[in-house]
Amino acid sequence: MTSTTGHPGWFVVFEGGDGVGKSTHVQLAAQALSKAGVDHLVTREPGGSRLGERIRELLLDPATGFVAPRAEALMYAADKAQHLHDVVLPALRRGAVVICDRYLDSMIAYQGAGRVLDVDDIRGLGQWATEGLRPDLTVLLDVDPREALADKQAKDRLEAEDSAFHARVRQGFLDLAAEDPQSYLVLAGRRPKEETAADIRAALGRLGVPGLGCGPADVSHQAGSIAPGAGGSES
Amino acid sequence: MTSTTGHPGWFVVFEGGDGVGKSTHVQLAAQALSKAGVDHLVTREPGGSRLGERIRELLLDPATGFVAPRAEALMYAADKAQHLHDVVLPALRRGAVVICDRYLDSMIAYQGAGRVLDVDDIRGLGQWATEGLRPDLTVLLDVDPREALADKQAKDRLEAEDSAFHARVRQGFLDLAAEDPQSYLVLAGRRPKEETAADIRAALGRLGVPGLGCGPADVSHQAGSIAPGAGGSES
Repeated sequence: MTSTTGHPGWFVVFEGGDGVGKSTHVQLAAQALSKAGVDHLVTREPGGSRLGERIRELLLDPATGFVAPRAEALMYAADKAQHLHDVVLPALRRGAVVICDRYLDSMIAYQGAGRVLDVDDIRGLGQWATEGLRPDLTVLLDVDPREALADKQAKDRLEAEDSAFHARVRQGFLDLAAEDPQSYLVLAGRRPKEETAADIRAALGRLGVPGLGCGPADVSHQAGSIAPGAGGSES
Repeated sequence: MTSTTGHPGWFVVFEGGDGVGKSTHVQLAAQALSKAGVDHLVTREPGGSRLGERIRELLLDPATGFVAPRAEALMYAADKAQHLHDVVLPALRRGAVVICDRYLDSMIAYQGAGRVLDVDDIRGLGQWATEGLRPDLTVLLDVDPREALADKQAKDRLEAEDSAFHARVRQGFLDLAAEDPQSYLVLAGRRPKEETAADIRAALGRLGVPGLGCGPADVSHQAGSIAPGAGGSES
């Protein structure tokens, strides 16, 4: 199976509210890809490019003061455009699996469903910024925000919002997943970390990512290891 | 005559390429308004709000490196959204004349006509950012870029672009003025500063801005001076 992105690589996104365990599962998925010798890249939005890191700092810095909702949405969209250009597209073009911590759904859920802006406007903005690039797979970690945030201090401006906000964000993610169930893996509730990680590895295998348990390994997507009998050298 | 913005104040924008004398004429117009005792505010884009100043620094800093065209357009749009919210709308609501050094036309001319992006996309983005607010008057200072830049060192990234770029930008401004001639004052070529300033004052008077030579002064728009016979105090 090949990527739906039109590029040789696969684009895999992790989404969900604050405190649901995205960072943990991004790292576990990356470890599984490393173990299978698959060329991959871990990145995140906002951030992930030099411009993006500065945008992220600016938006999370309490000294920035109140950011108008449209300005905030546009800054996140700018981050996405730069990240796509600098990081995501080059990796997809070389055939890597790109694992991205947050993408368009976060923008739509936080800026659209969570705030005063029109969801369709935000979606249009994000799609323009990313030139319409959609993930092959979105892993949505869906945990009740009261549970997700219980053991985590409110660290930044977003996390300081009230619980109704987090409930609207959560529903925003679920609505997006319901629109296109085939390209989502929705993992509900707190479960043992290893069970969730195994489900994610299986979903990567079903995409056609080699070495993750679905069909024969495709050596053209492997890096750092030589498939038995393949011979030759890899770039 | 009242403002077309739907607010008590007037919105006046100065546009044109680098080196055409916008800053000079913004200052002269402000002096004329001060002399007439008209409440006014001088501002600029990009910049003009706290977030906007930081966006401006970021975009003009050579250390930021290459900024993807869509990211750049989105950053300028974010600046506009914040500037509108923090600066322009509050002043228009209180009845001030807002004088703005660059607005949507600069974004369209530089990002659209000057670069690789679709002009209609950029315009749509800018209109969304600014909630459709259009100036009552746009003063376009149109000077041949070779003449405008001859005596000015290339100070920042934009000004380091080549002459074909500046020619496309100039045409972008002229195309926008041609679409809506009634709300533009196009001042062509290098002329004595005082002649240009007098034309601008006359155009402000035609808008209905009080104290600039068109009809009786409207004391409700005056600040810092008491109209003869008006008595009372002003806020």
